[in-house]
Amino acid sequence: MKVLSVNAGSSSLKFKCYEMPEEKVLASGVFERIGISGGIYTIKFNGEKREKKCELPDHKKAFSKLMEELLQLNIISSFDEIKAVGHRIVQGADHYKSSVIATDEVVKDILDLASLAPLHNKAAVQGIKGAKEVIKSAVHVCVFDTAFHQTIDKERYLYALPLNWYTEYHVRKYGAHGTSHKYITEHMKEVLESNKKLIICHIGSGGSVSAVKDGKCVDTSMGFTPNAGLIMGTRCGDIDVSIIPYIMSKKGYSKDDIAMLINKESGLVGLTGESDMRDVRKLADEGSNIARTALNMYVDRIVDYIAKYYFELKGVDAIVLTAGVGENNIATRKEILERLDFLGVKIDNNANDEIAGFKEKHEGLITTSDSSIPVYVIPTDEEVMIGRDAYDFAK
Amino acid sequence: MKVLSVNAGSSSLKFKCYEMPEEKVLASGVFERIGISGGIYTIKFNGEKREKKCELPDHKKAFSKLMEELLQLNIISSFDEIKAVGHRIVQGADHYKSSVIATDEVVKDILDLASLAPLHNKAAVQGIKGAKEVIKSAVHVCVFDTAFHQTIDKERYLYALPLNWYTEYHVRKYGAHGTSHKYITEHMKEVLESNKKLIICHIGSGGSVSAVKDGKCVDTSMGFTPNAGLIMGTRCGDIDVSIIPYIMSKKGYSKDDIAMLINKESGLVGLTGESDMRDVRKLADEGSNIARTALNMYVDRIVDYIAKYYFELKGVDAIVLTAGVGENNIATRKEILERLDFLGVKIDNNANDEIAGFKEKHEGLITTSDSSIPVYVIPTDEEVMIGRDAYDFAK
Repeated sequence: MKVLSVNAGSSSLKFKCYEMPEEKVLASGVFERIGISGGIYTIKFNGEKREKKCELPDHKKAFSKLMEELLQLNIISSFDEIKAVGHRIVQGADHYKSSVIATDEVVKDILDLASLAPLHNKAAVQGIKGAKEVIKSAVHVCVFDTAFHQTIDKERYLYALPLNWYTEYHVRKYGAHGTSHKYITEHMKEVLESNKKLIICHIGSGGSVSAVKDGKCVDTSMGFTPNAGLIMGTRCGDIDVSIIPYIMSKKGYSKDDIAMLINKESGLVGLTGESDMRDVRKLADEGSNIARTALNMYVDRIVDYIAKYYFELKGVDAIVLTAGVGENNIATRKEILERLDFLGVKIDNNANDEIAGFKEKHEGLITTSDSSIPVYVIPTDEEVMIGRDAYDFAK
Repeated sequence: MKVLSVNAGSSSLKFKCYEMPEEKVLASGVFERIGISGGIYTIKFNGEKREKKCELPDHKKAFSKLMEELLQLNIISSFDEIKAVGHRIVQGADHYKSSVIATDEVVKDILDLASLAPLHNKAAVQGIKGAKEVIKSAVHVCVFDTAFHQTIDKERYLYALPLNWYTEYHVRKYGAHGTSHKYITEHMKEVLESNKKLIICHIGSGGSVSAVKDGKCVDTSMGFTPNAGLIMGTRCGDIDVSIIPYIMSKKGYSKDDIAMLINKESGLVGLTGESDMRDVRKLADEGSNIARTALNMYVDRIVDYIAKYYFELKGVDAIVLTAGVGENNIATRKEILERLDFLGVKIDNNANDEIAGFKEKHEGLITTSDSSIPVYVIPTDEEVMIGRDAYDFAK
């Protein structure tokens, strides 16, 4: 069975086409500048890469083009060979504990939830609507980035704020990256041959840490929005909230300025001018003190959450590092593990040095056999997780 | 030598008069409604309590009254018997790493720092000025609530925010309750017979946790303001900062509304309507689910910080609980220790039950002799710490 996994942004559409249940990637790619003039798309197929220019007035047009290309490439022989489409939805709030079929009612609900994730949910709905018009034969499935975190207890998702902010305005922890944390959880069940206590560090340009027990999420570092928890490429993570009214009064910032500054101009870029871990490390290597401080802060914050979840889970069976930095940045991994040495965590430097995206080895254990806690690097795969959920509804 | 320890609020003045170096309390009390009609003061002396009405137009008048009373009670035979006055200052920013004499320059500087703690620093300066006019013979010493935290490393005091918020607007972690954390640190040096790695939980209506190593503060949970970290009686502690622009847009709140709501209408009172731990426990005992949830959140957050500092210090030699809740609330202490059982922390329930302000026993160990980490209850004493620092300058 052929299945599409899609991620619609406000002006973009990423996709992967799978043969299921083998999970073989038949094609993948991205459509860009949707709704803006100068549309362009890239499709990877059989080791080749096609790039084409094409005006893309809306997501529907992008889906038509995608299907035409899949036909032309002989990946499908007719549109109705695509039996399922999985759509990534950023914010499902507490309405969705698992993936659901994208009925009109669900689509309306996702739009209603847009006040919690304005850009993302509206774009996702445009994606769903466009896809449903073009790929009529398929079952369309919504896969929520928040669903995996719906098992978190009330005492861990509530904030100590005026209670009506929760009851009337839905202010609570929802988390994000749930599809990634779920993928790693399922993968680790195979690696460890059973569900265990896991701390999963998804560290990329965004970042979150989750505590998982018996396959269920117990806690996660992102909160009401993806801005909580870790220090990220451009997001501040946890700060003293009283800074906000202070800096608003000092600088005359509006609430919209604040939302932009804490999301786009903070984190690594706020301190160093660079948002990419590799560039920050380069600055530090060249002698920048603030870059070195920022790196220490970044690593310290990850370890803070490992500490918190180690206590919350009352011990842990394995720690997993994943996503851009986790999968590739050897130095960051080493610095995280060094801070855990007092627990008996012992890095295997050879193993750690061998695993990176540009090298042959992509996953594995980076601690020695006598390490008190094994630490794994596992590449995440949100797309296949979305594809799996879509397939489950169609098979 | 006779020394005064004072804490000036915007309309109040608390004091203790000590015989030094014995640290014997000769008298204590509070002046209220300063600058408001209907002034009143209370003085405790020799187990007796005097309450008098007296208009108190300013702090100078309160100091005159105080000195008159001390004369009348034969605690002093002349004003110049008071050789030192220690003044509590909430915010010393990174200007003061220890106590200093309250020169005109220092007083001006404290006023300049008022934008970081508007009400507190202005009131402190009124207190210093009033005291200097009335008690001319004494050395006046400023004791800063932030000074003990000045040993914290840059990577722990900086936020991942636009760097100019720090360089130009002084946004960084300063901490608070430093005088209390320092008192406990000095006391524990005697108890343990050397400086060790300590985690000190000052939990009262406000609350903060500090990590201390070799007598020096390594980290603390309060931040730029006292609103960060723990869930408190009326403060939210750590939250997702992105909640603020969201709720401002939903409710039309101004930055001043926000500053008030997160400081006065959040924490335990925001969730349960009660800010006092005893009242929240009463609600929970009567069956309130939200009160039970709030108590769990309160305890969880304390344990989160114990976890964080346990990792940061790479282990700990002793944990100390202090301040209102720490010294008196048997159930809260028990719940904190239960969450540490997996580390080998073993509560001594008899010892824990015996220690409370209304009982005879006020301090001691509340873990068994085979507990992996000893946990102590130690009553804090910020007043004597201020008195000691003042005495040090006069002796």
